[in-house]
Amino acid sequence: MPEQTPADFDVLLDRIAATARAEIGKGQVADYIPALARIPAGKFGIAVCAVDGAEWTTGDAREAFSIQSISKVLTLLLAMETIGPDAVWSRVGREPSGTPFNSLVQLEGERGIPRNPFINAGALVVTDCLTAQTVSPAYQLLTMARRWSGNPDLAFDESVARSEAEHGHRNAAIAHFLKSQGNLKSKVEDVLHVYYRQCALAMSCLDLARAFLPLANKGQTLDGRSLIPPLRVKRVNSLLLTCGLYDGVGNFAFRVGIPAKSGVGGGIVAVIPGRYSICVWSPELDELGNSLPGTAALEAFTDATQSSIF
Amino acid sequence: MPEQTPADFDVLLDRIAATARAEIGKGQVADYIPALARIPAGKFGIAVCAVDGAEWTTGDAREAFSIQSISKVLTLLLAMETIGPDAVWSRVGREPSGTPFNSLVQLEGERGIPRNPFINAGALVVTDCLTAQTVSPAYQLLTMARRWSGNPDLAFDESVARSEAEHGHRNAAIAHFLKSQGNLKSKVEDVLHVYYRQCALAMSCLDLARAFLPLANKGQTLDGRSLIPPLRVKRVNSLLLTCGLYDGVGNFAFRVGIPAKSGVGGGIVAVIPGRYSICVWSPELDELGNSLPGTAALEAFTDATQSSIF
Amino acid sequence: MPEQTPADFDVLLDRIAATARAEIGKGQVADYIPALARIPAGKFGIAVCAVDGAEWTTGDAREAFSIQSISKVLTLLLAMETIGPDAVWSRVGREPSGTPFNSLVQLEGERGIPRNPFINAGALVVTDCLTAQTVSPAYQLLTMARRWSGNPDLAFDESVARSEAEHGHRNAAIAHFLKSQGNLKSKVEDVLHVYYRQCALAMSCLDLARAFLPLANKGQTLDGRSLIPPLRVKRVNSLLLTCGLYDGVGNFAFRVGIPAKSGVGGGIVAVIPGRYSICVWSPELDELGNSLPGTAALEAFTDATQSSIF
Amino acid sequence: MPEQTPADFDVLLDRIAATARAEIGKGQVADYIPALARIPAGKFGIAVCAVDGAEWTTGDAREAFSIQSISKVLTLLLAMETIGPDAVWSRVGREPSGTPFNSLVQLEGERGIPRNPFINAGALVVTDCLTAQTVSPAYQLLTMARRWSGNPDLAFDESVARSEAEHGHRNAAIAHFLKSQGNLKSKVEDVLHVYYRQCALAMSCLDLARAFLPLANKGQTLDGRSLIPPLRVKRVNSLLLTCGLYDGVGNFAFRVGIPAKSGVGGGIVAVIPGRYSICVWSPELDELGNSLPGTAALEAFTDATQSSIF
Repeated sequence: MPEQTPADFDVLLDRIAATARAEIGKGQVADYIPALARIPAGKFGIAVCAVDGAEWTTGDAREAFSIQSISKVLTLLLAMETIGPDAVWSRVGREPSGTPFNSLVQLEGERGIPRNPFINAGALVVTDCLTAQTVSPAYQLLTMARRWSGNPDLAFDESVARSEAEHGHRNAAIAHFLKSQGNLKSKVEDVLHVYYRQCALAMSCLDLARAFLPLANKGQTLDGRSLIPPLRVKRVNSLLLTCGLYDGVGNFAFRVGIPAKSGVGGGIVAVIPGRYSICVWSPELDELGNSLPGTAALEAFTDATQSSIF
Repeated sequence: MPEQTPADFDVLLDRIAATARAEIGKGQVADYIPALARIPAGKFGIAVCAVDGAEWTTGDAREAFSIQSISKVLTLLLAMETIGPDAVWSRVGREPSGTPFNSLVQLEGERGIPRNPFINAGALVVTDCLTAQTVSPAYQLLTMARRWSGNPDLAFDESVARSEAEHGHRNAAIAHFLKSQGNLKSKVEDVLHVYYRQCALAMSCLDLARAFLPLANKGQTLDGRSLIPPLRVKRVNSLLLTCGLYDGVGNFAFRVGIPAKSGVGGGIVAVIPGRYSICVWSPELDELGNSLPGTAALEAFTDATQSSIF
Repeated sequence: MPEQTPADFDVLLDRIAATARAEIGKGQVADYIPALARIPAGKFGIAVCAVDGAEWTTGDAREAFSIQSISKVLTLLLAMETIGPDAVWSRVGREPSGTPFNSLVQLEGERGIPRNPFINAGALVVTDCLTAQTVSPAYQLLTMARRWSGNPDLAFDESVARSEAEHGHRNAAIAHFLKSQGNLKSKVEDVLHVYYRQCALAMSCLDLARAFLPLANKGQTLDGRSLIPPLRVKRVNSLLLTCGLYDGVGNFAFRVGIPAKSGVGGGIVAVIPGRYSICVWSPELDELGNSLPGTAALEAFTDATQSSIF
Repeated sequence: MPEQTPADFDVLLDRIAATARAEIGKGQVADYIPALARIPAGKFGIAVCAVDGAEWTTGDAREAFSIQSISKVLTLLLAMETIGPDAVWSRVGREPSGTPFNSLVQLEGERGIPRNPFINAGALVVTDCLTAQTVSPAYQLLTMARRWSGNPDLAFDESVARSEAEHGHRNAAIAHFLKSQGNLKSKVEDVLHVYYRQCALAMSCLDLARAFLPLANKGQTLDGRSLIPPLRVKRVNSLLLTCGLYDGVGNFAFRVGIPAKSGVGGGIVAVIPGRYSICVWSPELDELGNSLPGTAALEAFTDATQSSIF
């Protein structure tokens, strides 16, 4: 692969944006809460951070959006750091689910052990790992997100959090079921309260690309501090690849070929080990809950840069 | 069948009690809440009421116990009376579930319409039918149970209700799931509050046999007042037969052959149309949640009196 | 209930036929094999046999049709007689399935023990009980059907049997799965061969009502010979009620209230213990596989004669 | 990563072999057919091929074993070449299944479209793609395997193929179900016949590592001929990662981190894009069907060579 210059990348991102914007109109903005439903469907942004410190953006890459399930990666990293990986993996699996992200069926069949930390049930258990350990896990997550993104102004969108809580009966069902199976230690209400705030964290593409850069850089910041042990980086990246896009992981790996995590707010953050972290945002989702223009953009990016990990 | 005299019946019930007591020690007292777990396993009582007004009892037939799911029949009758059958059946099915009484799997597959009013999900919807309509559905149920049983002293066992609420995460999961599917109108907490009190109603075998006599008597009381329309009596009896014993309805119909409803408190109330209502109580359950000695007693009864409806 | 005279019944059946025929056009003739798809949708017949020997018919009651799953009752009775009930019940359950009649899902979850003898999986196991025991189980069934119906001309419709075999991949899937679970002793091909012929037995409403009369008459023929032990009669009738109409048993019991067995050929045979056997035939099915006009006719019959068992 | 010399690798493989052999005794040799059950549990071999032509082996790396499900990769490549990728993907999905490899449950829920080409249902459909197209698909596969491995002596183990056919009722169930759903064009018997022979292909670790080298080498042979288009290479590798180890893909990616395909004969073949193809063989399986010592060996290999793709 020939080296890319910044100028090349600016042209490339604009071309990709044009391709991806052609998908707008073919998906559906998440409408299960009003705060998400009113996001304009036409939003589109990309940010790319390279391990050498270069950065590129296009479109709405600096506008904050609701990161939703992308927070599950940060929460997992925080829990692994706080209570250790073994304590996490004794309560959550590491397999793709083969079912929708908010399904209760599989959970009942497997006695309350969620399949992985990136479906709602698994993320609730991970949140519980933190809730049982620290006074204010939401604040801890916020602090971590601010530090890793370098943006001290990050905040929870409290109206989104409230809206999630009001419409979150399916998550409440999952949490109560986990509690009935003995896989939730804190009070259901407390875990849900933290969980909804995590999902309501507002970040821009650039914030997220910066925060995820250590996963592309052997766990290190640009100035060489280690945030995540290298082995853990590989393992979390593998989980992103096998479990990061709900019940669409196989197709995403097939078409795009890199570790990534999506959220129903329309964001997808991706990692190209040793090279880039990327975040794309566009609110229209496919029927599995992944951004339709976002997927198209990432496919165009890995094609153009020959950066599929396969 | 030759007519039975009261004296014959006293002998018969004692013989049946001896047979059924032989099952004690083979089952398990419900232990999911402490208030039920401490009921002595050796309890056993039967009460039989005939449509001509005769009554027989043996053993602990006058001791109150937690009626648990038996309350689902009373709640259904109350809801059918209060909001009309069509309004109930638009929200609950009438098919046996083929799964455990507290399963979430089937509910997810069928988009929030519970299979029947006698599994927990269905009973929660029926309770919601009442909660949306009346100020105090639990008090209404209590009033109805007092009137139908002729026992003005009936009361909820508040310690059982509290205990259910504390350990009721699986029911809370079901209720939140129903809410997420749009099949619960009141607040989840309100429905659960009423539901747990209904389950905690304490009645004796004699109370229950008297309260259910109208289902054996074309809907009428002994003095000829109509409590339930005759067609509704038939239909509710059919539901008892196809859905009244959780995932053990087929075997119960095969062995015993009469409409009945069981509760995890160890009670089973049964109806022999045109002849008797019967209630048996003994706390040890089989793996499906039905009283083991109670089932044996009812089988011996229908054998001896040739009263299977088949 | 006032006694019915033959004249009353002729009027009644004509009235019922008119009511039921109004349903024609609302269902679907079974079309999975051409031999069934070409039956005219407008066919309709009823036959009623009383335990005192009276018989009534109307419409196409003397025209032979493909009895399909109704044969499962005859096969079950034959197997219980041939190898004894315990040997049958060690390999098949007695619970309603809560799933479509040809489902494989539940079978996999329950390790190859079919839920009951009236879903396809259960009937295949029952057929295997016979296949392992007798040289020609299909011929045995035919002999039994001829004797019980009093019609020596009964025959298999070989074109239907061949057509079933050609289009029977779902049944073959079930049979191979049962074999893989160790719950099929004979060769898959042999069991399927017998099974398809059983389903292809052609009988009229009158033939079937006569053949099923012993189930309404304590197991006896009109001239007092015992064909089925009385206890077995009750038990088989209970199975018809809880498992005889696929995943529509609850609604059928609710509306009609008597033991019955349906077939996708459009026949439903029903039993009113102590009084009548009835068979109705009309090919249009509801989405569960039960004759739509047939169900309406039986509901009208039990309403008019007050003969629900509840 | 420092360059590895051949001498280093010989030492490395011996050390890995020692580590992996410590797992022998903790798993179970496949015993569903006698021909597999009699393979000595202590067998262990590794072969590594580098894209620069270097090769290393240790242990039983030159002994042929039954490749079983590893054949599914070759069949998929053959079908994509023969009928084109789109024709394949119209009949098979690309998502991990989240269920055991031989499950029927998911297939019924998803109307006969298998989740991916590496579970049995999917492989049967891929085989059918070939069966419908060519006279002798088994011979085609054999020819391809001989050419790609450079071993003209490769052969089917006919005793294994016969044994599979005799004990293959679960596969027959799946094939008949696919046929009933319209997703099998050839005759069930024909597809199964080819399928069993494919599974019974006998190859050594060295044969397999050589045959899979193009997947590590942009689709090219060592002498630069193109066997697979580069984009297809990436896509097939992504499928190996998300679907190649039955219901253990997530854990394998987490621990080992490279695309791979396992078979119940105890083989696992893996691909490190741009560097190596590897095959390890040892017959003892974990409860999901993957070689226990084989997984341990591959984990040690990617750790030592820092060759996880993440």
